[in-house]
Amino acid sequence: MDTKKLTKLTPRTVDQAKWYQELVLKAELADYSPVSGCIIFRPYGYRIWELMQQEMDRLIKAAGIENAYFPLLIPYSFLEKEASHVEGFAPEVAIVTHAGGKELEEKLVIRPTSETIIYSMFAKWVHSYRDLPLRLNQWANVIRWEKRTLPFLRTSEFLWQEGHTIHATREDAEKEVTRALEMYKYFMNKYLNLFVVCGRKTETEKFAGAVYTTTLEAMMKDGKALQCGTSHLLNQSFAKSFNISFVDQNNQKQLPWMTSWGSSTRMIGAIILAHGDDQGLMLPPKVAPYQGVIVPIYKTNDEKTAVKSYVEKVQKLLTSYRITVDWSDNSPGWKFAEWEMKGVPVRIEIGKNEVKNNLATLVMRVNRFKKQIKVTDLKVEFTKTISEIEELMFNNHQNFTMAHTFPITNLEDFKSQLAKQKGFIKTYFSGDSKQEKEIKNLTKATTRCRPFDDENDLGKCFYSGKEQSEVTLFARAY
Amino acid sequence: MDTKKLTKLTPRTVDQAKWYQELVLKAELADYSPVSGCIIFRPYGYRIWELMQQEMDRLIKAAGIENAYFPLLIPYSFLEKEASHVEGFAPEVAIVTHAGGKELEEKLVIRPTSETIIYSMFAKWVHSYRDLPLRLNQWANVIRWEKRTLPFLRTSEFLWQEGHTIHATREDAEKEVTRALEMYKYFMNKYLNLFVVCGRKTETEKFAGAVYTTTLEAMMKDGKALQCGTSHLLNQSFAKSFNISFVDQNNQKQLPWMTSWGSSTRMIGAIILAHGDDQGLMLPPKVAPYQGVIVPIYKTNDEKTAVKSYVEKVQKLLTSYRITVDWSDNSPGWKFAEWEMKGVPVRIEIGKNEVKNNLATLVMRVNRFKKQIKVTDLKVEFTKTISEIEELMFNNHQNFTMAHTFPITNLEDFKSQLAKQKGFIKTYFSGDSKQEKEIKNLTKATTRCRPFDDENDLGKCFYSGKEQSEVTLFARAY
Repeated sequence: MDTKKLTKLTPRTVDQAKWYQELVLKAELADYSPVSGCIIFRPYGYRIWELMQQEMDRLIKAAGIENAYFPLLIPYSFLEKEASHVEGFAPEVAIVTHAGGKELEEKLVIRPTSETIIYSMFAKWVHSYRDLPLRLNQWANVIRWEKRTLPFLRTSEFLWQEGHTIHATREDAEKEVTRALEMYKYFMNKYLNLFVVCGRKTETEKFAGAVYTTTLEAMMKDGKALQCGTSHLLNQSFAKSFNISFVDQNNQKQLPWMTSWGSSTRMIGAIILAHGDDQGLMLPPKVAPYQGVIVPIYKTNDEKTAVKSYVEKVQKLLTSYRITVDWSDNSPGWKFAEWEMKGVPVRIEIGKNEVKNNLATLVMRVNRFKKQIKVTDLKVEFTKTISEIEELMFNNHQNFTMAHTFPITNLEDFKSQLAKQKGFIKTYFSGDSKQEKEIKNLTKATTRCRPFDDENDLGKCFYSGKEQSEVTLFARAY
Repeated sequence: MDTKKLTKLTPRTVDQAKWYQELVLKAELADYSPVSGCIIFRPYGYRIWELMQQEMDRLIKAAGIENAYFPLLIPYSFLEKEASHVEGFAPEVAIVTHAGGKELEEKLVIRPTSETIIYSMFAKWVHSYRDLPLRLNQWANVIRWEKRTLPFLRTSEFLWQEGHTIHATREDAEKEVTRALEMYKYFMNKYLNLFVVCGRKTETEKFAGAVYTTTLEAMMKDGKALQCGTSHLLNQSFAKSFNISFVDQNNQKQLPWMTSWGSSTRMIGAIILAHGDDQGLMLPPKVAPYQGVIVPIYKTNDEKTAVKSYVEKVQKLLTSYRITVDWSDNSPGWKFAEWEMKGVPVRIEIGKNEVKNNLATLVMRVNRFKKQIKVTDLKVEFTKTISEIEELMFNNHQNFTMAHTFPITNLEDFKSQLAKQKGFIKTYFSGDSKQEKEIKNLTKATTRCRPFDDENDLGKCFYSGKEQSEVTLFARAY
């Protein structure tokens, strides 16, 4: 007898923060570690990351980009080579001062991101236009010391991929920035079933050392926004300070253009917050450790025997999916609740009725919709069900985002809207950095992006009244 | 026109160290980094690691072990909880003293291995015999500060997998130690085509904190041994100091048994040193980024057109393999040399003769054996050729190891053998730690292992004359 108890989560509407923390622990995604701000990725949580990695890696390779690996430790002086980069990252880095029993001559930082160490190598590898473009990606852990942390969303150590490319022209580099963002969008939509808004960050919010930063912003169910990935065009001051140059076709020395783009284990947080409900996690099928769970239902030993051989038959039909069977001694009701907590997209109930009538009962996590399928149709129907779930999850999230995007034209409405119901505040904003700070102080909301879809829509700034201001999304954010 | 020049490697026999370093750079496996003792894994080298990871991960998962991820940083006090563990690792760790702009209250070490941080979680997760066994694996980077480093073989940062399991009984734990070692052996034999000797480390050479350590030792072509992986039964003092205990079926509190086992990017070094030759790298097909390279041979544009469409046909036949085509402007001879340097197992030459007669010419990297295949048989013949290569590479390495295993019965022969030709010195040795140190000082050779295959063979120690001594392999080692 399994003695574990399944207690219900605190409802989201009662206490979202509590709900999140309980879910992370109960679904066994992560655990708190003895190291401040760092979490343990438990197998179920780590498996989601592995599946994300696997699929994202496929997209990266398909774009012709190769993986490489650069050192964890970076000389502190590298960070200092680009003024805004060190300003942005210095407050967050962890510093190694001693190694091998000695004090180091130069202190090293644990990478918060790898531009600088990679650029020191680009200087060595790039000489001629024939060496360009050079397009690399790295899967790695990084450390950015955080004061207040939340599992997956904000942790001192996190796992990510960082793409780094170098090009002969700004035009080529900008194409890469866009390509990476489009790749992320495709991934968020199709693999995580998340609706995202793509746009450009304001000057205040851009990456430390970028000409500009593009971003994907997703709306969480509590009305707060989450940045799901970014893609940057880097400042050429990096090329200057790292002495990266190349000789072009006319034998002229030129400064190259660099891009970088990243996505991280934060995406697990996005899944929890955008899809989860009071029953627990709700996983997008493409990154679910189990896409289906078979729950056998029986009372007598004879029933169990019959159910067992039928379950084996069902398993054989679904070998192209990740399926688990729960043979624990818990009651069916307990199992239903446990696997809903763990967010498995489809529950497959097999009892004496199913055995007798050659059926399988499928229950979709997303809406608890139940259907009885002839076992001969199971393979086809399961595939269809998975697609239906993906579509539903995406549509739900898109509809939710639309319903939580509030156009406003003045500060009073901005504030009263956030007091009433949080979400994206959509308005014209001048982009002035000082005013952006003032607005943040007044509303606790930050600019999320200037959506590409509204690029040609200009109007009067809600705050300063300045004409020809761009459409900007604000939100309280993770 | 590609202007790169392909210069020959310094022959191994002339200067093995130079040969190794040149090969690593010329085959673009790695590059030196600005961070002392750390290397850059360039795409070609990293791809080998990715393939190793992919295959090893499959074996690990097939054994029912799940991946997880634990923090990079470990409180220094954790290391100190087990006396021999801290003694072993303290001299090699990198220490973080500052983070987030402040001096830390407790200094943190970058993991040199993760027993301690994982055991702090086992204490939280393990309470009852029902929680056991718990079997986890982690893919991670670790840092062990090294004074003298060599790419892949000894670097301050390296990539590895570390398995960590906890069991109710010593017997179960020992089975796990053996299972992991057998898994590694299978991997070395079948995936890396390496012959390895499995055995137990002496007390001097065992892991810091182990009851005993088992190991796989491979003989490199210069007569030096390389440890390719280890599997340990851990000391129960870990369980005591981390307060890990469980209640057994009789409601008695018990101390559990832990194992750990690891293999790393060192295996790339093993491949270079065990298989490589004066032409360069020789890659085992299962971990080769490209298993075949097609070299088109043509003189006129018309020939090129004909060859091109034929090459496409050949590619379509080999889609289940990793194949690349070299369309660069270099001469065929240059291409042959370049891809031999990069160790591609099979070269496929396609010229006008092949086109005319519906043939493909295959050349095996391992022995330069050339065969002409009817294109209709290509798929089958390529598969056969790959198997042949794997068998040959393994047999060559096994034969080499046998021919470089020297039985001796006294110290003089030990020394004169190593002066004449290096390899495994096979002899009876008492295992006395003090004497082992003396022998190391006299011969520069260390004990590699006590081979399992010779377990029942006891005799007179070559050094002390002590009877009932076990068979022991000594060698100079990486």
